[in-house]
Amino acid sequence: MLLLLVGIGMKYEDLTLQAIQAIESADLVIIDTYTSIHEDINRIIELIGRKEVRLAKRSDLEGVGIERIVEEAARRKVAILVPGDPLIATTHEAIRVEAAKRGVEVKVVNGLTVVSLAFSRSGLHFYKLGRTVTLTYDPSSVDYVLRVIQDNTSRGLHTLILLDWRAEESKAMTVQEAVSMLLEGDKEGLLAGRVGVGLARLGFSDEYMVADLVPNLGGYEYPGPPHSLIVTGDLHFMEVESLRYNCGLPEKLYERLVKRL
Amino acid sequence: MLLLLVGIGMKYEDLTLQAIQAIESADLVIIDTYTSIHEDINRIIELIGRKEVRLAKRSDLEGVGIERIVEEAARRKVAILVPGDPLIATTHEAIRVEAAKRGVEVKVVNGLTVVSLAFSRSGLHFYKLGRTVTLTYDPSSVDYVLRVIQDNTSRGLHTLILLDWRAEESKAMTVQEAVSMLLEGDKEGLLAGRVGVGLARLGFSDEYMVADLVPNLGGYEYPGPPHSLIVTGDLHFMEVESLRYNCGLPEKLYERLVKRL
Repeated sequence: MLLLLVGIGMKYEDLTLQAIQAIESADLVIIDTYTSIHEDINRIIELIGRKEVRLAKRSDLEGVGIERIVEEAARRKVAILVPGDPLIATTHEAIRVEAAKRGVEVKVVNGLTVVSLAFSRSGLHFYKLGRTVTLTYDPSSVDYVLRVIQDNTSRGLHTLILLDWRAEESKAMTVQEAVSMLLEGDKEGLLAGRVGVGLARLGFSDEYMVADLVPNLGGYEYPGPPHSLIVTGDLHFMEVESLRYNCGLPEKLYERLVKRL
Repeated sequence: MLLLLVGIGMKYEDLTLQAIQAIESADLVIIDTYTSIHEDINRIIELIGRKEVRLAKRSDLEGVGIERIVEEAARRKVAILVPGDPLIATTHEAIRVEAAKRGVEVKVVNGLTVVSLAFSRSGLHFYKLGRTVTLTYDPSSVDYVLRVIQDNTSRGLHTLILLDWRAEESKAMTVQEAVSMLLEGDKEGLLAGRVGVGLARLGFSDEYMVADLVPNLGGYEYPGPPHSLIVTGDLHFMEVESLRYNCGLPEKLYERLVKRL
């Protein structure tokens, strides 16, 4: 009958009126617990109330899981709740296309995503975002991410690096791990003089952001996952000011950057 | 005392619980009416109720306007409501930095932004977004936008093109105008065989999206502004499927694209 793909942001207060309506109108609510982490899943479950709720693992939302969900949505109103925005990662697009093929209507309710928060919180300019990339524990990932950073920075652009999250193993890559993996692979010294921003639990009530030279970012204390990282390209004066006031850019580095502009 | 920068998305139902709390707690509410268009400003004003409301023009939020707002926020709780997300455009960052310099606390409440909606609605992959650019009525803008498209497509990446909006003249660029300006400037035939997506009132209740070859996008009927445009780079099979099911990609073009993959 209807499949609702509902973004729920990072915390309870990120719910939009539209997301609440979607949750209230659904017969079955499926909560995606594997593409990302949400601060207030228990409060969301309270909001859902007495209706049927399922916590979905990867296998429930991929492969044959997709067919099962689409079949259910052909009979009743099914809402899939996704931390962040439902379609910024490519994961849920396969469900949407399969539903369309079977003539099941799909409605997307967008949610806040780390992609826009990373820029609007740090003060870096979104129109200077180059290609976004995910660093995973897969050894070939480091080289790929370094190539993307090189390609972006050569154009003056920033690189947003999302970090691996393996729900099934409860394993989430930290900024410290990411920095150390990238530095080890960085034979050309691409990162040595680059300013970066370490982002932890962005949009959560205990979010933490810090700007410093990339090699130094591993030395800070961060709250738990999810983490992500920005490697900056060319910085505009206003961006340097923003990193100073929003992300605690160290004063000495601030002065050096301002002198260079 | 406190300056709240509050994203209100595109329509009333996009309000987050956090945005509603921010509006209710403010002593003075300023609504930005010039950086973008919102579907339900009147319902937002109803929500604000009896407290002081101001509709702000460009001059109220730039230059000396910034100092005036920061001075007010030093005395009482001021919320600036911004269609979409408050800091994806660079406009409001100057207010945030000025407040920080004067020791006035700033809180950002994020909102849905066209930047993430353009990808999550169309089904194009966000990690293939290259540099984002705005096409303005300024004659030099066409060349700049074409250079960005060339640079992005040469790397297989998509280009999101935001279109000029001149609140003071109530003048908003349409997809038709944008396509005709770009084709006229496109001496190298960069756009001829490219697939694009025309986006009108994305996130509004009457949103409209259509995928076709860029030169054909000017031939469709769109609802009113705001409009934007995506010029695609290399397309993954799933993206072609998504454009077919989500954006009405013509069947003949679909078959041609699938054959090429």
